[in-house]
Amino acid sequence: MSTAIELLSSHTCFGGEQRFYRHASREIGLPMQFSVYLPPRALAGGAVPALLYLAGLTCTEETFPIKAGAQQQAAELGLALIAPDTSPRGAGVPGESDAWDFGVGAGFYLDATEAPWAAHWRMESYLLQELLPLVASTLPVDDGRLGIFGHSMGGHGALTLALRHPGRFKSLSALAPICAPTRCPWGEKAFTGYLGPDRTAWGAHDATVLMENQPAAPYPAGILIDQGLADKFLAEQLHPHLFEAACASIGQPLILRRHAGYDHGYYFIQSFIEDHLRHHAQALGTR
Amino acid sequence: MSTAIELLSSHTCFGGEQRFYRHASREIGLPMQFSVYLPPRALAGGAVPALLYLAGLTCTEETFPIKAGAQQQAAELGLALIAPDTSPRGAGVPGESDAWDFGVGAGFYLDATEAPWAAHWRMESYLLQELLPLVASTLPVDDGRLGIFGHSMGGHGALTLALRHPGRFKSLSALAPICAPTRCPWGEKAFTGYLGPDRTAWGAHDATVLMENQPAAPYPAGILIDQGLADKFLAEQLHPHLFEAACASIGQPLILRRHAGYDHGYYFIQSFIEDHLRHHAQALGTR
Repeated sequence: MSTAIELLSSHTCFGGEQRFYRHASREIGLPMQFSVYLPPRALAGGAVPALLYLAGLTCTEETFPIKAGAQQQAAELGLALIAPDTSPRGAGVPGESDAWDFGVGAGFYLDATEAPWAAHWRMESYLLQELLPLVASTLPVDDGRLGIFGHSMGGHGALTLALRHPGRFKSLSALAPICAPTRCPWGEKAFTGYLGPDRTAWGAHDATVLMENQPAAPYPAGILIDQGLADKFLAEQLHPHLFEAACASIGQPLILRRHAGYDHGYYFIQSFIEDHLRHHAQALGTR
Repeated sequence: MSTAIELLSSHTCFGGEQRFYRHASREIGLPMQFSVYLPPRALAGGAVPALLYLAGLTCTEETFPIKAGAQQQAAELGLALIAPDTSPRGAGVPGESDAWDFGVGAGFYLDATEAPWAAHWRMESYLLQELLPLVASTLPVDDGRLGIFGHSMGGHGALTLALRHPGRFKSLSALAPICAPTRCPWGEKAFTGYLGPDRTAWGAHDATVLMENQPAAPYPAGILIDQGLADKFLAEQLHPHLFEAACASIGQPLILRRHAGYDHGYYFIQSFIEDHLRHHAQALGTR
């Protein structure tokens, strides 16, 4: 299958370009779409640091560029923003679209090991082995200066991928992340389906478990997490206090900000996105 | 029909609240939805100046709050943002949804005089006689300090409503507006359907004609218009040069900025929205 990428559209935005691409994915075995924001500095010719943003349940590669309002700050800081889709689409697995929290739109950023999902639901390999190398080889992005962040299921993805691939991402943050998927209904459903009922395989994809098992703080400059206190999923699904305790147990600095009044959606995200971009820019050295 | 308004949802955003409402509209004769962003200053109790934003073809009351990225600046400046829907919905007029540029989602911000549209397509009376009074009477908005702006069809709406209702709006701007609807396919189709084939009635809803007939400059502090030069609708539908000439003919100051590379969509809008809010804030005296 060709690795050529097709530019679907490009929109000038804050002097940079918001682009949408499609490519035939080797890891997924299907066409995949993703978006990239290139700041003015990248269009001027220089390779820029980039942030990989992972979105939540039901989202697509369009959600972040449309709703988060991150481009203005990315333009000023000289950061590229890469946003993939949240799952394979068009696989035709029976039942793949029956639920909004499993299957299509709910890839959970891992490689499924259970049939019938294992053939296509390979989001971790897709992102690490295919999409990031593809972007770095075709766009003015500095592969050595990558940060990762995400929201909800994508916050889970950001935390776990950062901890599972030491050194790959120089900076890490999350918005309302699923912090302990082995101990919440969304995670239990997804991991049972994708990884099988044997829970011993699950901890390798649980940010809290992964952090508890770190030999030393992997992000000594700190991890930033924002959480709204009016988030209807907070108590049952997100469990930031468990990740907070895990960070404390190994001495990982964590800036966990709890915000009164804010809910789980993109009006919350846009309110704090600027702080996340600045957090990453400081670690990635955009200046 | 009751004029009570129902709060559908409220989302904390930059310390203010992004709200969505539904009410039974007297003027439209159907339920209508609208959105309001209230900045922190309004929640603290003071009535704040407000901007009425009119969206383009196919949009709803959600488009602006989701895509324009205006809340951050509105929060800082202390401006409320009111965004109505773009037409009646659910009227059941035969053919009302057959086209994306006429009928549902395409109200053109005027009162139709032709059957079968005249019964419900009364967007001008709805906005001026019902929605703005309703907002001012139920929310902390200063009815004496209103500005108006909009995009594309909504830019037409902003320019024409401002000129048809002298003194009602203290400030005016537009993004890629339809500037001369009597001389473009979108306008000719809409005006034929809503106002009838007799073109003598059309000029009263054409911003360029209205400006040409002003006795003196209605906005001596200036009107701001942004236009992308990669906008695929520019040459055939928008005609800002005609409005520019009309402004020049009566001495109306116009800041018409033509931006290389930008297209017709919300990536263009979000790139310049801050300048629009500042333009209005200066005229409305938010400080």
